[in-house]
Amino acid sequence: MRIIELKETVTASNDRDAEVLRGELKAKGTLLVNLMASPGAGKTTLLERTIRDMKDRFEIAVMEADVDSDVDAVRIEKLGAKAVQAHTGGMCHMDAGMTRRALDELGADHFDLVVLENVGNLICPAEFDTGAQKRVMLLSVPEGDDKPLKYPLMFSVSDVLILTKTDVAPYFDFDFEACKRRARQLNPNIEIFEVSAKTGDGFEAWENWLAKAIEDNRA
Amino acid sequence: MRIIELKETVTASNDRDAEVLRGELKAKGTLLVNLMASPGAGKTTLLERTIRDMKDRFEIAVMEADVDSDVDAVRIEKLGAKAVQAHTGGMCHMDAGMTRRALDELGADHFDLVVLENVGNLICPAEFDTGAQKRVMLLSVPEGDDKPLKYPLMFSVSDVLILTKTDVAPYFDFDFEACKRRARQLNPNIEIFEVSAKTGDGFEAWENWLAKAIEDNRA
Repeated sequence: MRIIELKETVTASNDRDAEVLRGELKAKGTLLVNLMASPGAGKTTLLERTIRDMKDRFEIAVMEADVDSDVDAVRIEKLGAKAVQAHTGGMCHMDAGMTRRALDELGADHFDLVVLENVGNLICPAEFDTGAQKRVMLLSVPEGDDKPLKYPLMFSVSDVLILTKTDVAPYFDFDFEACKRRARQLNPNIEIFEVSAKTGDGFEAWENWLAKAIEDNRA
Repeated sequence: MRIIELKETVTASNDRDAEVLRGELKAKGTLLVNLMASPGAGKTTLLERTIRDMKDRFEIAVMEADVDSDVDAVRIEKLGAKAVQAHTGGMCHMDAGMTRRALDELGADHFDLVVLENVGNLICPAEFDTGAQKRVMLLSVPEGDDKPLKYPLMFSVSDVLILTKTDVAPYFDFDFEACKRRARQLNPNIEIFEVSAKTGDGFEAWENWLAKAIEDNRA
């Protein structure tokens, strides 16, 4: 597994770079998903289960972005999926240039799906287009149902909201309906799934959505 | 309750501004605590219980910093403590100039303790000195014990680490000893408390530390 040290791309044209990258990925039939959430919301755990369930149908790779450490990339490689660990040099987000560098490290193999597991942060990653075709955010039950009120941009720019750790819902005061209503007020078209990576509850609906997105992208 | 709209201070001298502010606060006998954590780690809930327990001994005010909403300041005001809600204009952190503006909004009353509840984020707030005398960070059990590896700066700059939501520890795989060892590797002098705001477990030790810090600051 490779660890690469990134620096913020010095460019005023992140949006244009992202559009170019998105076009290249589409031409290759690769779906790039930008996975975003708070620290500890369960991004890597969601990916582990998703890869295990889908790796026989699709070629999947993961780019792990963190300020430091390689613990997440090690977890992904244990599943037999290709992973690269990107260190952001203290940066709180990935941009299109950093994403391109991480993609380059994955090499020339074809992938149907590449997941960029962004830095754990509900604010900064929402502000930067990475070139991904789809933005998927996680909110874990322990974080609370008021998060759409406090971090509205992340909910506004995401195509999908996955509510995670539903297995511990009995131990927390989390109002699913209030949370979903708040998210849809910001973003009426957002797709919402409720999952537990521990029990597998809700994964079928999420994985069906993801499989369709991969297939639509190849078409 | 006042809501103020802040902009990032245009100054190259945040560190110096922070030092000046710290000196002014010390001269007034006010302890400013910078409270930092991920979204949903339990900052406001910790504050609610702390204020309830300590408001008869000390004059306490809270500055809530968020990208949007005023839900946290409303919660604090219900306890009878003075609160101001600062909106960061999309910014992922508070700096010394923004903190000074929020302090100005609290008015001329004397406070023994002012808590700045920083934006929910484990990265950016660690990089900016707000002028606080003490930095206190929270890590909640559901976030996982690997967080010191991924967000090392926050653990390095904090005087205190409070592990929160210990009541739900039976439902999560959280290794307290591993987490504390990782935090102390980054910061050998960090004070660590384990609390549950639901049951009150561990609050006595945390509040004793805070009371002593307030009294040392007035001396």
